[in-house]
Order: sequence, then C-alpha cells, then structure tokens
Amino acid sequence: MSVLPGELSTPYPVVDVDVLDRNVRAMAASAAARGIALRPHAKTHKCLQIAHRQREAGAVGLTIATISEAEVLAEAGFTDLFIAYPIWASPARARRLRALAERASLRIGVDSTEAAALLADALRGTGAELLVEIDSGHHRSGVRPEAAGEVAVAAARGGARVGGVFTFPGHGYAPGRRDSAAADEAAALDRATAALTAVGIDPRVRSGGSTPTAAAADPRALTEMRPGVYVFNDAQQVELGGCDWSDVALTIAATVVSRSGSRVILDAGGKVLGADQAAWATGAGRLPDHPEARITALSEHHATVTFPEGQPTVRLGDVVRVAPNHVCAAVNLADEFVVVSGGREIDRWAVAARGANT
Amino acid sequence: MSVLPGELSTPYPVVDVDVLDRNVRAMAASAAARGIALRPHAKTHKCLQIAHRQREAGAVGLTIATISEAEVLAEAGFTDLFIAYPIWASPARARRLRALAERASLRIGVDSTEAAALLADALRGTGAELLVEIDSGHHRSGVRPEAAGEVAVAAARGGARVGGVFTFPGHGYAPGRRDSAAADEAAALDRATAALTAVGIDPRVRSGGSTPTAAAADPRALTEMRPGVYVFNDAQQVELGGCDWSDVALTIAATVVSRSGSRVILDAGGKVLGADQAAWATGAGRLPDHPEARITALSEHHATVTFPEGQPTVRLGDVVRVAPNHVCAAVNLADEFVVVSGGREIDRWAVAARGANT
Repeated sequence: MSVLPGELSTPYPVVDVDVLDRNVRAMAASAAARGIALRPHAKTHKCLQIAHRQREAGAVGLTIATISEAEVLAEAGFTDLFIAYPIWASPARARRLRALAERASLRIGVDSTEAAALLADALRGTGAELLVEIDSGHHRSGVRPEAAGEVAVAAARGGARVGGVFTFPGHGYAPGRRDSAAADEAAALDRATAALTAVGIDPRVRSGGSTPTAAAADPRALTEMRPGVYVFNDAQQVELGGCDWSDVALTIAATVVSRSGSRVILDAGGKVLGADQAAWATGAGRLPDHPEARITALSEHHATVTFPEGQPTVRLGDVVRVAPNHVCAAVNLADEFVVVSGGREIDRWAVAARGANT
Repeated sequence: MSVLPGELSTPYPVVDVDVLDRNVRAMAASAAARGIALRPHAKTHKCLQIAHRQREAGAVGLTIATISEAEVLAEAGFTDLFIAYPIWASPARARRLRALAERASLRIGVDSTEAAALLADALRGTGAELLVEIDSGHHRSGVRPEAAGEVAVAAARGGARVGGVFTFPGHGYAPGRRDSAAADEAAALDRATAALTAVGIDPRVRSGGSTPTAAAADPRALTEMRPGVYVFNDAQQVELGGCDWSDVALTIAATVVSRSGSRVILDAGGKVLGADQAAWATGAGRLPDHPEARITALSEHHATVTFPEGQPTVRLGDVVRVAPNHVCAAVNLADEFVVVSGGREIDRWAVAARGANT
C-alpha cells in the first residue's frame, strides 16, 4: 500500500522501490538467462536513480528516444546510449549529436537513405554508429527488412559506421498478440540481418524488444532487447496479462473529491495520468485496490470512477491509488516521485529528463 | 505560417500572438455585448503574459482548476481567482487556501455537504467564498441543481460565505451539441438559483460557460462565463465547427522523420501533443496546412500521418505545424512558448504554471 497521509496534496506519483527493484532484477535475470543483452528504454522513467539500478543489475547501456534525454543521461555519467529513433540531423541536431558523441558511446537510429546521408555527415570523425530501423509489423517508422541493406549502404557510403539493425514490435501491445509479435520481430530481424550481410555489412547488433514481448524474445534472432515499461508496469500491462497488480511499482495517489450514486470523482485527471487509452483498455486507468471499479471518463483534473456492482467502496476524502494506463505518459507529467518502501516514504527522486522530448 | 527555421530542435509549441490577441479581444467583446462577466479559465494557457492580456481586455478575474495554479497567479499579482473545482480541504490544503485567501479574493467550488463543512472550517475568518457546483448534463462533478440549496446551507451553517452557483456544460464538446448544452446550462443555473433563493441564500454569482458553448451562453441565466480554450483554439474546436484553422493560435512545430507510401512520421507524439482524442475526432490532432491529412496513430514520440488521397505532400526533413486535439493538454507538457508575429519569432513566454496540478 503506497498511499501516504500527511503534507502532500494529491495528485502525486508514488514509486514502491521494493516492487521496482524486483522488476529490475527479474528482467535482468530473464535477459541474462537467454544471453540477450539488456538495454532498457529510459524514456519510461527519465530518472537517474532508476538508471543506476538498471546498470547495477547488468544493463549494458540505455535506450532513449530523444537527443535531450541522451544529454541528461550523458551529463550524469551514462555513456553507452542508443537513441532508438530515426533522427533527422538538421544543423542544430547535428551539433548536439557531435557534442554527445564526444561524451558517450552513441548509437542512432536511421530508416531512410536521406537521413543516413545527413547523419553520416553529422557524425563524421566521431565514434558514433547507426542502426537501421526495420518495421516488424507495428507499421510506424522503419523500413521493410529487405530494404535495410539499401539504408546501410547509403550510411556506409557517407562514411558512417553501421552497427546493425533494430525494431520495435509495438503490435504486441494488444491482447493475445505477444507471441505472434515476438515471432514477427525475430523473423524481421533475421531478414534484415540477411539484407545487411548481402551488402557486406556485419549486422553485429540485432536489437528488439518491448515489455509485452520481452519474455518471448528469441535469442537466436536478438542480440539485445530494449523493454522500458517493466520497471513500473501499468494498467495496460496488467490488462494484457503480462503482470499482476502486485508488480505495479508506480501509482498516482488521488483524492475522492465528489460522489454521486455509483460514481466518484478523483482529483487525478489526464494532466497527471496521461490520456493514453488503447481500444482494448477497460477505461482510462485502474484502481489496483478496487479492481471492480472502472475509470469511465477522464478530463484534465477529474477521473470519473464507476463502481458497477453498486455503491462506491470509497468515501469522500479517501486517498486511493490509480495505475495509469501507460506509465511513460504519466512519468512525463511529473517533476518527482515520492519513493516508498514498506508503506513509508523514504526518498524523493527527480524526474531528471522530464520534458526532455526534443 | 508559424514555423521557424533555425536553432530550435522540434517539437516545440509556437504561439501566433496576432491570432491570440484577436481571440482574446473577440471573446471579451462577445461577453461584454451580452453583459456577461468574463472570467477566463487560465488552466488552458498557464501563462502570465496571456493572463495579463485577458485582464487588459476586460476579464473580471481568472478561473483555475488547482490550488497550485492559484498560487502561481496570486504571486504574479492576479488577485481575483476562482478555483472552479470541488476542493477537498485536507489539513495541507486548508493551510494553502488560508495563505491564498490573504493575498487574493478567492472563490472555491463545493459539491457536497461534507466538503462544505471542511471548507467552512478551513476558510473561517477569511474573505473567501464558496460557489456550489451543479451538474447541468456533463455528469462529472456537481450536484443536481435542486440539491444546491442543501450544500449551500451546510456551507453557511459552517460559517462560510456562499456566493452563488456554477456549472461546466462539458457535454457541449460534441458535434451539434452547442445549443442544447447551453440551454441545459441556463436551465440548470435557473433551477439552482431557485434552490438557493428558497433557503434564503442570494445566488449573486451564476457562472457557466466553456469555449464551445460561450457564443450561446444565455445572459438571463449567467452572470459570468469561464471559457478557456478560446485563446488558442485547437483541432477539437475546428472539428466542432466553432472556429477555422486561421483562428488556431498554438501549433506544435514538428519534423517529418520517416516516410513510407502514403504515410509519414512526425517527431511530435503524445508526450508533446497530449493524447486526448474524443470519439468523434478524426485523429490524434490535425495539420492545419494539410487539411486532408489525418493523424491515424500516436505514440510517445511519433505521430503517424496518413495522406488518404495519395502521396504525402511533405518531404523528409520538412517542418510542419500540428494543431493538438486539446490544447490544454499540450500546454501542460510545455515549458515555454515560442511567440511569433508575422511569421517571425518575437519572444519566449514561460508556461509559468506548468505542472501546477495539485
């Protein structure tokens, strides 16, 4: 139970460090058991204390989504960084990347010959390397696996080092899709590996992974995986069947401010929980201590919670825990975490890369 | 056209001050013409420069959603503040409210006899007054209009001043619902007015309004209205038919980072645009300069834009403007606005109450 009485005004995020540490260790052990390097995605937590814990548990480096996240981490001494994003190296970004490459071992995503040429120019003379992003079924960024060679050749011709290929099997974020998405990921990485080999480039790094597919990631196809959400988990992961409420390390403490019939209003809305809601979600987040309740509407400062089986089991003024649907979005809205262990506050951790989204 | 070349890395929010000023003046004139006091909701912009403009245009005071927003505004000299939210006056909040009431003329929302008793205790000896929230059809917080008297009596028995009643006709946020929601608002305020009068309490303030319903707000029922979004507008307001793209003052500058077939990926995702998406929205935001395009998927750092009529009309590396669905959510994710006039950057404004959500 991670809700604190006292001086803080709700809503605020609470991190149960015991659950967090268990999640960090379990993923590290699962990756190690299969011989897959773990490079966790730090966009989930944006927090130095958690990055340290991941490194101590054996992470080979960190993944981030933006140059500014990389800047925050490099400044704090994390020097093995993969920006798993198809960066467009505008002049301003090129300068930032070169400065970063002086301080960190840097990998950057690329998914077009045009971006490859720009990145090759930007990174000339640095030790940074490019990884070609491929689409394994999520249909977001990334080229067809068979086209990976073309992008790699463009990068190499520009003088860039090409380290391998990567993909994000985001289509695993749907009920029952874990195993098929992991199989798609492995097959796509295999095809991209062949495409790079065919053009004479060694696909040393074959990177994949997400929290839903991590347990099914295939060590024959992947050398590395990049799950992020697993440190905290969230309502989505529980509703996808990947974990239990007892594995959810971050919740938002919220107060019941209004009550009418079978519904209550909490003071945590989209400006704190985030508004992500997949089509298959049961609502706009969940109350782990009231699993029958549903968040049936969300506005900026209100969560409407409906108790379908009758009267609400919470009273006006009660402080309850809310698991956001998507914890990455909730973290990006917070300045700090209240850290608890055994139900008592033991620390506050800054969300050091809060807002670092450029 | 509000996209800047140069040093900034996308994504970032751009405010066209000429459009902003026109929106501020138009709403002020519309309210004045009907004799309705304008108390804009500052949760939309969280920005002192914009609050000053609203006051100069004739706003009688400001509305906010949280105590911390009120604290930021009071510190900056805005001393007529309405926290239009059913505050639960825990001991920590009671202390903050008393400190605020020493610096500002303060109104606070209440929608239960329990909260009324707590607030009355908290505010004893201050000049703060309570407004009873009623539900006019949005079914979020607020009591039935007929129950307003009961809450007002509880507040008055506790020693609190009761200033009147308020409602938010949020069910006007749907196509074709503007006039009926405004009619519901007026009818509910009339019934609540009668309920207060019946218990001998003068409903001096009868406050309503939202951006969609503002033009239809009934001056016979409302003494005051509280629209917020109108300063910027957003994709929702355009899709609801309340304004045109030329009235949208805030857009997110984003770069085309990936392209495949009829779709492109922009580097502005939910961590910058917000993830609000009403059931009737055409997508996760809009591109004002490419009205045929649709944002068909959104993740943290990617917007997937589909050009349904053929090839994308944007190229890799192009910087485009994105209108968020719900501008309040996007503002809450930003630290500052890039302010432009006539297409040139003229200033940066801090989002002073960014994160002030407790």
